[in-house]
Order: sequence, then C-alpha cells, then structure tokens
Amino acid sequence: MAAKATPRKAVVVGAGPVGCLSAISLAKMGWSVEIYERRPDMRLPSSKAAAQQRSINLAISARGIAAIEAIHPNAAGRFLKTVIPMRGRMIHHVSGSQESQLYDKDGQCINSIGRAFMNENLLTEALDIPNIRVLFKHKVASIDFDERIMVVREVDTERDLEIPFDFCVGADGSYSIVRGQLMRVIRMDYQQEYIPHDYLELKMPAGPVVGGEPTYLLDPNHLHIWPRHTFMLIALPNKDKSFTCTLFAPTAEFDRFETPGAIIKFFKAHFSDALPLIGEEALLHDFQQNPRSSLMSVKATPYHYKDRAIILGDAAHAMVPFYGQGLNCGLEDVRVLDILLRAEGVNPASLANGGEDSSLARALARYTESRHEDLVSICELAMDNYVEMRHSVVTPGFLFRRALDNILYTISAKLVASTSLRPTLSREAFPSSTPSAWLPLYTMVTFRPDISYSTARRIASREHRILEVTGWASALIAVSAVGITTITILRRLGLIHPHNTG
Amino acid sequence: MAAKATPRKAVVVGAGPVGCLSAISLAKMGWSVEIYERRPDMRLPSSKAAAQQRSINLAISARGIAAIEAIHPNAAGRFLKTVIPMRGRMIHHVSGSQESQLYDKDGQCINSIGRAFMNENLLTEALDIPNIRVLFKHKVASIDFDERIMVVREVDTERDLEIPFDFCVGADGSYSIVRGQLMRVIRMDYQQEYIPHDYLELKMPAGPVVGGEPTYLLDPNHLHIWPRHTFMLIALPNKDKSFTCTLFAPTAEFDRFETPGAIIKFFKAHFSDALPLIGEEALLHDFQQNPRSSLMSVKATPYHYKDRAIILGDAAHAMVPFYGQGLNCGLEDVRVLDILLRAEGVNPASLANGGEDSSLARALARYTESRHEDLVSICELAMDNYVEMRHSVVTPGFLFRRALDNILYTISAKLVASTSLRPTLSREAFPSSTPSAWLPLYTMVTFRPDISYSTARRIASREHRILEVTGWASALIAVSAVGITTITILRRLGLIHPHNTG
Repeated sequence: MAAKATPRKAVVVGAGPVGCLSAISLAKMGWSVEIYERRPDMRLPSSKAAAQQRSINLAISARGIAAIEAIHPNAAGRFLKTVIPMRGRMIHHVSGSQESQLYDKDGQCINSIGRAFMNENLLTEALDIPNIRVLFKHKVASIDFDERIMVVREVDTERDLEIPFDFCVGADGSYSIVRGQLMRVIRMDYQQEYIPHDYLELKMPAGPVVGGEPTYLLDPNHLHIWPRHTFMLIALPNKDKSFTCTLFAPTAEFDRFETPGAIIKFFKAHFSDALPLIGEEALLHDFQQNPRSSLMSVKATPYHYKDRAIILGDAAHAMVPFYGQGLNCGLEDVRVLDILLRAEGVNPASLANGGEDSSLARALARYTESRHEDLVSICELAMDNYVEMRHSVVTPGFLFRRALDNILYTISAKLVASTSLRPTLSREAFPSSTPSAWLPLYTMVTFRPDISYSTARRIASREHRILEVTGWASALIAVSAVGITTITILRRLGLIHPHNTG
Repeated sequence: MAAKATPRKAVVVGAGPVGCLSAISLAKMGWSVEIYERRPDMRLPSSKAAAQQRSINLAISARGIAAIEAIHPNAAGRFLKTVIPMRGRMIHHVSGSQESQLYDKDGQCINSIGRAFMNENLLTEALDIPNIRVLFKHKVASIDFDERIMVVREVDTERDLEIPFDFCVGADGSYSIVRGQLMRVIRMDYQQEYIPHDYLELKMPAGPVVGGEPTYLLDPNHLHIWPRHTFMLIALPNKDKSFTCTLFAPTAEFDRFETPGAIIKFFKAHFSDALPLIGEEALLHDFQQNPRSSLMSVKATPYHYKDRAIILGDAAHAMVPFYGQGLNCGLEDVRVLDILLRAEGVNPASLANGGEDSSLARALARYTESRHEDLVSICELAMDNYVEMRHSVVTPGFLFRRALDNILYTISAKLVASTSLRPTLSREAFPSSTPSAWLPLYTMVTFRPDISYSTARRIASREHRILEVTGWASALIAVSAVGITTITILRRLGLIHPHNTG
C-alpha cells in the first residue's frame, strides 16, 4: 500500500488527566487526535459541582511530574507551581497530640492538588495544540477493532456516530468501556476486587481571617492522618485554606452511623481534635449529602490489541488510594508508552489507513510485556499501605524499623550496589535498576521515577530482610548489654561471685 | 401489600442444561417461568451443525445425575440410561501400548453424553411443564434490576422488548450478560484467567461393520488419554461408534502447525496409534475446519443481588474441563439453590409484584455464602488436574501414591472418621462432611455428591500429607530391608565381620 501524507487518526477515550496527557503525547508525534468524553466539559460552571463531589484530592509526586515534564515541559512549568507541598505525615494521636513523620530526609515532598484544577489545566494545554479536538457528551457504545470503527452516542441527541480510527487509547477509568470491548477480542486475564471498606468525604473549612486572609486550621504542609487501626481519617490541604477530609472505615462500621447521635459520638471518641474544626453541623450535613463510595482494585493483561488499541491509567490498573500513586502511575503509563513508540520509530504519517503498522504493534506488545509487573506491584503496594497508614504508623515495631531504615539511608551504605536486578523495562524509561545507596521503599516509590515500581518492591523486600536481621541483632545486643551490666552491678555489690558454679 | 394469587414471574437467561434445570426447579415450586435464549432452537436441523462444532463432549457423573434426580426424577429415568459409561482412563503410551486405570475400585463410572442430546432432552422435559415458556433468538440487551425490567432484543426483527420480571436467573455461560449487568449494581469480586493452552476437536470415525453394525475402534468404556507431559490428546465415545478426540496443547505448540506436513509429523511422533484410526486426510480436514479454542477460568462473588437475581453454572464459575465437572457443578448449583429456596419457604404466589421478598433474599444470600468455597475449590481442582492428566499419570511417584491411596481406600481404615470438618453448606445439601472411610480425591469429587467440593479438597489435602509420610516410611522400610539383607548376605559370605569396627 502506498504511503499517504495525511496523518493517521488516534481516538482517546476519556478526557481525564491520563487521556489529556496521552493526547498531547500522540499529537506531538504527529497523530491527528480526537478525545471523546462522556461527561460535559468540566470547565463549565454547571459541571464543577458534580466534579467536586467525585473523589478524594489528588497527590501528585515525582513520577507524575516527571511524566508531564517528559511529554510537555511547558505545562509542568505553568501549572504545577500552584500545588501545596506536603513534607510528611502528621499523625494525630487519640490524646489529641500531633507527631510529624517526614517523608524524606532531604525534604522531598508530595503535593496536594485539586482534581478539577489539574484536569482543566491539562485539557487547556491539550487544546492549545492544533491537531487535538475534544468532543464532550459523547459516550462510546461499541468498538470494532478489526474494522477500526468506534460507535459513539451523542448524549444529548441519542444519535449514534461511526468514528473511523487508526489507533485507540482507552483512558476511561476503572469501569472502562474500551477495556470491556477489548475483552471481546483478546484473551484478557482480568481481576477486580473490592476491599470491604468504604470512604466518605468531609469538608474542614478555612480558619479565622488574619490580615485580610483566611488561615489554615491545621499545618498545610502535612498530610494529616488519624490512624485508628481498623479505620482512619485523613486530611489534605486546599488552596482556599480548607482541608478535604476522608473517612476510611469497614463497611460494617459505616452501617452503624444510623443516627446523628451515633456519628457525633464516634467522632468525639476517635477524632476529638478534628470534630470542632469540622463542626458538628457540617459533619452531619456531609454524612447526609456525600456519597459513600467503594474501593476497587483492577488488574489486567494484556493491555493492548495488535497495532490498534491500548488501555492506560485506571482502565488498566485501578488501585486503592493509599500510596497516592493512582494518578502518578497513570501519567507514567503515558511516559513509558511515549518512549516505546519513539524507540520503535512509529510514524503516524507513514501508512495508509487499513494497513498493519508492525512498529506500532511491536511498541504496544513491548508495553504490555514490560509494564505488567510494575502495575501489579503498585496495586499491591497500595493495598499493603492501607494497613500501614491506619495501623502500623503508631506501632513501636514500625517506628523502630523506620528509624533504622532512615539511619541506613543517611549513611548510604551502598549495601545494594552489588545486587543484580533483572531490568523490567527499557533502560531509557527506568535507568536505575540498581540504585547505589540504601533507599527506603516509600522514597523509591514516591520520589524516584528513575526506579520502576517492581524494582522498588524487589529492593525493598531485600532491605526488609536485612532490617529484620539488623533489628533482631540490635535487640540481641541491647539485651546482652543489659545482661552484662546487670551481672557487673551484682558482682560489684558482692551478690554474685565470679565462677560461682565452679 | 396484599397477597396475590397469580404466581410471580422468573426469567431464566440461557436454555442450556443449567438454564433448563433451573426452569424446571422454579416451575415445580409454582413460578411462572420464561426462558430467553440468544441462539435458535437447538432441536431444529439447521442448528445442529453449529451446536456440534461448539465444544468437547460432556462427561456426566454422580453429581449431575443426583441434581437431575433431585429436581425432576422422571427426566433422569428417561434419558440418562442412554449414556456410555467410562470405567477408567485408558493411557496410550508413546510405544503404542495401552494401560487401563480404573476410576473406582467398586466399578463406578463417569458417562459420555452428547452435549446436544443432553440439552435437547432437558429442554423437552422443561417444555412438558405447563408454566414454562421458551423464547429463542431473544438476546438480553440490559437489565434494570431495581425496576425489575429486562430489555431483550428479538434477533430477527432487531426489536427491543421490555420484559418485567420478579426473579432473574443468569445461566448464560462464561461470557454471561446477566453477570455483566449485575456487576453494574453490586460490588462483585471477579476474576477471569486464560491458560496459555488451546484445544481443537478431531473426529475418529466408527470402525468396520460387523454383523450389520459399525464397531468402535477403541474400547468405548474408557476415557482415552495420550499424555505427553506438555500436551495431550483425549477421546470420548459417541453413540454412533465414533470418538470425539480433543488435542490440548500450549498456544505456542499450535502455532507450529503451519503446514500439513508439520501436523502429520507431530501426530506420527506422538500419537502413532491414533493417527491411522483418525486418518491423515480427516485429521488435516479437522485442523483446517474446526475452531481452535481458548480455555478460561472464572471466579466471582457474590452471585446474587437482593431478592431478584442470581447467576448459576458457567456464568458464575467457568472452569477448565480437566475434571469433567463443569456441567455437573452447574447442575449441582440448581440442586443447592432448590434446597435453599425450599428451606427458606419462598412462595412465588405470596407476594404482589414490586414488594421485597425477604425469604428469597435470605435464600440467595445463603447460596452465595455457602457455595463460594465449593466453586473456588472445583475451579482450582480442575486446573490442577490438567497437570495430572497430561503428565503425572505416567510418573512413578503418581502410580505409587495412587496404589497406596487405593490400598487405604480398600481397607477403609476409618482414618478420617475422627477429624472434625467445618460444614460448608446446609447438612441437607451435603450430608457427609466427615466420611467415615478413606476416600481418594477423585472418588469424592466424582462419585460422592453427598460430599461438597471444598470438603473433598480439605480431606484430600490431609490424606495427601498422610500419603507423603506413609510413602516415605514405606521407602525407608524398603531401603532398610535391602540394607539388612545385603549385610546379612555379606556376612554369610564372610566378607564382613560382626562388630568389625570394635
């Protein structure tokens, strides 16, 4: 088939942050891009209320920022400067006392950002590029991947449109329609799992006005946690000086909140310092108004079909929110795919419609092959971190291991320098498969986009074994020291004699 | 709400064996039943060719028979007598020699039955009951469980019909639409997993005519297996004296069958005795004509929604076919549900449309709660049995443990009589939670419908540990005996002296 000069068309399903960044990535390579979004334009005032109800705040950290910088450096410069840095966890004990646990010894931060703000900005960046179009209120009905036709329903008119395409990106979230359509043509291993916990959002208002400006009621540079073992409350700062709080608790616990009295009593018993800051009336209002939502984890493989479709973001790997990596991981998907498309020399202008693009097929196959282990790793780490956040952070064992972890990190003992780790993705995407210093797991996952999730987990599991041994050795040394001291004292006091068994 | 005399309506989606038996069960309790089936009537001659292409033969055994007998004793009497009993596995070694391994020391059998024959007979039985109607070529488009409305598309006219219902049973197979619709309203944990193996059906014709009747080319009272470690061929007898053979092999192995020469060479090397019976031309014809199919395992929970919907059979637990339990398990689902509906006193005439039936809701919740462990158990046992069928059956370790297993079974040592096992379902469905004799796993799964799958697996795992110990003990005794004998001989020969180290 002869080469054609007009670029091929990519359809991106979903105008969330991952969809927008995918569109930017493809448009910059020369694809003609159309984004299809089921919901109305999120920039319209009428959409804002609905969007705000939707979900917990986003925490953007090094991985997400690295992805945006790699794809569209200007965007990162323009809107990422307005985030609120959070340097650590602020643990709120039952007594009401607060304890700061920094995330990183060198002061690296995660950042609170409004979901709507983030999304609007990425969309604006995308629409500044001439070869990107977005169609709101267009819902995908079905996709014929072999014929490369997507049927889209206009929500207002209920009219069905047949959209021809060359390449389809599904960035349409946990309940992805693109994924469902892909499952009809490929043998997809798929797992969705709900945890038996729900969440509910609560608003903590801004504090008193000082010098003409409202103030924060809590330190804005921390992620606040009230860990209560089986449940927890967290709070993230917003630009308007309010906090968004989220209560995570077992479904059975939520079922007990039947009366206003039960809710107030629960908050008085467990979150006595947060209750007056939220306010009893506002608390009851939010309990009545806000949806109580579920938490689901999704795993899938493969993510692609031949040379014509791929799923990214929550569509491929919805995860529980406890590592703050959901969005970061989705943006990283785009960075990894971008690298692979360029590495395989995919050229959107080099092929007429209808032909097979073997370089694109190869890039997508490499994506599935190399990305799966990382996506499973972060889904499982996110699940594990729920126990850490609501329970472990206040246990002596955790604090002791964490202290040891940080000591080793500080003295950078090069303990892992000699370990040989199987590289899980092209060196270009994750150059550090063997970091040369001791790094805590949280640091690797959150602050080191040059280390893949699976490498981070593999290194951490080795480090964990070393910490266990070191911990036991330290304990043994401590016990021995106490023993020797005691014997010495007893001897000095003349209460025992040397060699008194002889 | 006042009671109404007209019975409530149950819609059953899928007219396969599980759908038909469900319809019979509900109709006999007094429900007005409508079965909706996407395909044309399987009794029409035009449907038969398509049906025959569809899938490997069925093996019906005690669990399936017990279920049909419990729901509709007449049916069992009428058509189950035409099955072909298979007393054991016939292992075909590479050398061409055959070895019979009986399934049961008391001669119990599994039975080969044509899928179409089985389905037609159960459907005929269902349609003999006045309050059952079946609608073919009606495909479910969507279900509003809260409004109790099912939208069904007439395949020929493409017209959508709104079908009101009180209770919906999804018996619509591995790719169930009812399950997909349920996942929109309940938090269903769901997993589908493909194994990296495919299968292809081949026909072995009837043999020479003797006394006016064709004959079988192989012993019809065995399930024939050619175990070749990473792949295998099996053959089940048909009433017309032919066999249906199925080749199971890794996807990568199938990819190598590119030329007729490669196929013939493969069969000559591995199935040299089967090749002349199938015939080279017929083999190549089947390779070209018959679909190469995938093997998928499905796990889900919960299976129900409130008082209005449940999924049964493959829709709830598609499994790989290696334990011959897929159909048996689906029919058992119906027996278990029947018991629970009766136990909770569900009465289809006692409630007007639109009200909530708490007894039905209770019965369905009890089904999910009690059935899940059994369904996961049999899905996993089926997966394990693939390794046994294609590999273990010819290994010395397997043969030794199997011999021991049978010895213990024969002497019925009451070894497990005192173990206390958690009953996993109402005593009524599975009375034997603690069988009083030693029973091999295969016997419990295949011939003891009074023992649930999960109980069978739990007992077998204990027995396995005992067998391991017994096996090692026997080996130790054998080695000691050889050692003592050798020493005695050496002494007699004067080659060593007693106490020669003293």
